[in-house]
Amino acid sequence: MSLETLTGKSLIGRQECAEGRRTFLAVNPAAGSAPLQPVFRESTPQEADRAFVLADAAFPVYRAQSAESRAAFLEAIAEELLAVGADLVQRAGEETGLPAARLEGERTRTVNQLRMFAGLLREGSWVDARIDRADPARTPIPKPDVRRRLVPIGPVVVFGASNFPLAFSVAGGDTASALAAGNPVVVKGHPAHPGTSEITARAILRAAEKRGMPEGVFSLLQGAGKEIGVYLVRHAAARAVAFTGSLRGGRALFDAASSRPHPIPVYAEMGSANPVFLLPGAIRERGDEIAAGLCQSVTLGVGQFCTNPGLVVGRDADGAQGAGAGDSGIGKVLEKLSGLVAASAPGTMLHAGIRDAFAAGVHRMRGTAGVSVAGAASAQPDPAKTQAAAIVLSTDVRTFLERPELSEEVFGPSTLVVRCKTAAELEAVARGLDGHLTATVHGTPDDLREHRGLLEILETRVGRIIVNGYPTGVEVCAAMHHGGPYPATTHSHFTSVGTTAILRFTRPVCYQGWPQDLLPPELQDDNPLGIWRWADGKLGK
Amino acid sequence: MSLETLTGKSLIGRQECAEGRRTFLAVNPAAGSAPLQPVFRESTPQEADRAFVLADAAFPVYRAQSAESRAAFLEAIAEELLAVGADLVQRAGEETGLPAARLEGERTRTVNQLRMFAGLLREGSWVDARIDRADPARTPIPKPDVRRRLVPIGPVVVFGASNFPLAFSVAGGDTASALAAGNPVVVKGHPAHPGTSEITARAILRAAEKRGMPEGVFSLLQGAGKEIGVYLVRHAAARAVAFTGSLRGGRALFDAASSRPHPIPVYAEMGSANPVFLLPGAIRERGDEIAAGLCQSVTLGVGQFCTNPGLVVGRDADGAQGAGAGDSGIGKVLEKLSGLVAASAPGTMLHAGIRDAFAAGVHRMRGTAGVSVAGAASAQPDPAKTQAAAIVLSTDVRTFLERPELSEEVFGPSTLVVRCKTAAELEAVARGLDGHLTATVHGTPDDLREHRGLLEILETRVGRIIVNGYPTGVEVCAAMHHGGPYPATTHSHFTSVGTTAILRFTRPVCYQGWPQDLLPPELQDDNPLGIWRWADGKLGK
Repeated sequence: MSLETLTGKSLIGRQECAEGRRTFLAVNPAAGSAPLQPVFRESTPQEADRAFVLADAAFPVYRAQSAESRAAFLEAIAEELLAVGADLVQRAGEETGLPAARLEGERTRTVNQLRMFAGLLREGSWVDARIDRADPARTPIPKPDVRRRLVPIGPVVVFGASNFPLAFSVAGGDTASALAAGNPVVVKGHPAHPGTSEITARAILRAAEKRGMPEGVFSLLQGAGKEIGVYLVRHAAARAVAFTGSLRGGRALFDAASSRPHPIPVYAEMGSANPVFLLPGAIRERGDEIAAGLCQSVTLGVGQFCTNPGLVVGRDADGAQGAGAGDSGIGKVLEKLSGLVAASAPGTMLHAGIRDAFAAGVHRMRGTAGVSVAGAASAQPDPAKTQAAAIVLSTDVRTFLERPELSEEVFGPSTLVVRCKTAAELEAVARGLDGHLTATVHGTPDDLREHRGLLEILETRVGRIIVNGYPTGVEVCAAMHHGGPYPATTHSHFTSVGTTAILRFTRPVCYQGWPQDLLPPELQDDNPLGIWRWADGKLGK
Repeated sequence: MSLETLTGKSLIGRQECAEGRRTFLAVNPAAGSAPLQPVFRESTPQEADRAFVLADAAFPVYRAQSAESRAAFLEAIAEELLAVGADLVQRAGEETGLPAARLEGERTRTVNQLRMFAGLLREGSWVDARIDRADPARTPIPKPDVRRRLVPIGPVVVFGASNFPLAFSVAGGDTASALAAGNPVVVKGHPAHPGTSEITARAILRAAEKRGMPEGVFSLLQGAGKEIGVYLVRHAAARAVAFTGSLRGGRALFDAASSRPHPIPVYAEMGSANPVFLLPGAIRERGDEIAAGLCQSVTLGVGQFCTNPGLVVGRDADGAQGAGAGDSGIGKVLEKLSGLVAASAPGTMLHAGIRDAFAAGVHRMRGTAGVSVAGAASAQPDPAKTQAAAIVLSTDVRTFLERPELSEEVFGPSTLVVRCKTAAELEAVARGLDGHLTATVHGTPDDLREHRGLLEILETRVGRIIVNGYPTGVEVCAAMHHGGPYPATTHSHFTSVGTTAILRFTRPVCYQGWPQDLLPPELQDDNPLGIWRWADGKLGK
């Protein structure tokens, strides 16, 4: 599609809708929030009702599709996203300030995610089929025939995320996994990139039409206010919600969903500070390299990742006494990191709101007694380009332990270095942590053996522990877990990245005493789909 | 232990505690709620704090135990429960009015549940291990080594249920699955059977001591008021809650947990009406047999099962016009069922509160315009024995569809028969259903093929669908799902019966770039535990 065909309307099933009176514009953050055309119209509750009526009607038809049919639909979406060509990346770049190379990579990831779920459907074992056959001779009561598989739950509300306008937005991992499981999806587009949302939604709708999917399997509602989002979450037809964004936003949706007459789960991924622990041997062996890696990870994408390392906890080597920069331990890394950050170029943030929140967060940190600025980008950020400059702060372990708010996420290119002297202090910091998405530990083999206790504590605090790497860059694969205890997410059992993300939008159904011909194919004795199943205590095909 | 050693105290780690001022007594419902000795003392918030301090301290020690060690602990609990001998069944009988044979069967089930989870731990694959190996040569960015398994979440609060004083109480499925996963458990005993709770808790504590488990791995708090339960659910150290009971009770705990600063999941199983659909061919072929099966299922355990069939929806054969009892369709079953229920003996309910709630529920149903009594036990229930008498009500489909409250659970031996004439009416009833634990369909092969649409609707409303059977009797096995959409439970993805019940008390942790020797054994390359794992897209050992 060419850009001039953007309509600014919501896409509800096969209809274009623009009944709302309230309008909003996308802006180009790299051009001082200059407005972009066209005008977007905020969805009304009546439009949302229509999207759910269609989704409800589509559900029985869509869930009855074969796995192959749903897989082909996901692949068709991927094809349509590629067929859009340069327009998608161009518009996304204008709306987010993200560079084209990053957005092209993100499109590749989005396409790969859709294809990954198509592959998961074709393989088929994800339904977690379990069969316990009857034993009529059992005493005192005969054993019935009991079988179980996962089924879809119904219409899912997906909120687009601002920081991944493709991979965590309209056709991102949440939509892909919800559609894969067999659920219709109602997307609330993020107001910072409505044109990108519309282009993506049209690609999904073209794929739905080409693959003969029922109307209502997908709808896009546009909106800049909070009201329409809460309205969707409280809608009687909604069965689950997926959200990636701020703690405040995610918690508001969680509260709205939990207080419904019929509560529904909200799978909110709300970011975290992602602490990085630096152990003495690693600092000694490759402190400069770690500093360079940290600088890159902190400033990557102007720090706008859920997994951005906002906290670095370093231990001086035994016997190191110096408190200033330049000693043999964490001070050395801090000095190097500060220098690299000082030389870093300011970058355009996604929108003025995020830039202002970053500035306020840094201001709050800097103003905390015991916290000082160790390094800051020397180039001034250009407000006309919605820029932010990277900063490194530092504090001592005592100040940090006394002020839990210092471990809260500041979304953007900043990090706080906490200086420790002993393994016990590192453990105290770890023990004081709230839930985070990730923790990272840099250590030599000796370091890691010595700090086994630290690793054990971290395992109770986070969803992913990286050794000798960096938390940014979340591999999309079966073994990934992108989640963690609250406040990282609202439900630590679930992930928003990787194949197991599909579990959020499923529930088990048990079939007792069913005749073979009525059982779903996943549970029939002859296993026509050839999937892995637990049958009478044994796993097999 | 002999019964005179009951202390009436809470058991917090290895300490016996009785600081509370408020006291309560168990009563024997079969003896007119005659009080039983000893006096039980309600736990205080300070005692609860102590239980959580111990549980928090026990968690790192207990979670580090090998699977074999936890399995042996569960088996030791089973042994201790058996070693208690007749005292347990005797006290449970006095406190609940349930017959000895039923309680002995329930103890067998409880012991088998503990052993089932021990077996699950030894087999080991439940940790859902996934391995995606590194590919340093991948472009544009190298692929990291990513591995994932399930870990325990931390202290779990378990509420004992009144209707299963053994299998869903202190050492029931919730406790067994939480302990199996590696979590300390704090039980809030049900006030209707505190002596049974104390005997059971002492058995668990003896097993813990014999197996060298850390103090605080298990505590029992006694209490009759709601305050202590809510206090436990809102406690900062609690990580999840398991509850079986009423909708009102479950929802109150869910609301308390959801509004915490750090919300935690409440897995509440809150019962349901468990609709049974009778199709024309089945009625014609074996209407009398179905009526007998229904009578048995409705009156089993004085109707005090979550899966009690409180709703029977029957279809007259095509062409059957008669509206009264005695025609060829559902009327025939209704007549037979009414006769059987009229001849049924009243039974002692668990306590006066349940008996009164049953009476109020029946009163409400009977008073609804369009609902009539089709049959009632002719023998009068004896109030001095806390008895209730079974009752069959009937109504037409129009009345039923206009009054959604008629599909709400009435806990006890009652059922409402809804008379339909067409498959479309059956489907309308099914479509109007809220979430239920189960639905049942009786039909011939032809019936079932003709009513495929009904089965498809039921699959979106319930957690288990029984064909040509009865919902009471929940098989404890890998394929069981004892759950369902709200209001049957607070989270439809999870079950409280069967091996997958363990998932409620786990969360995934992802290990990225870890050296082999630090990885947990489940994720090491050479698979020392020999468990099933997904590695690089393939399932194997």
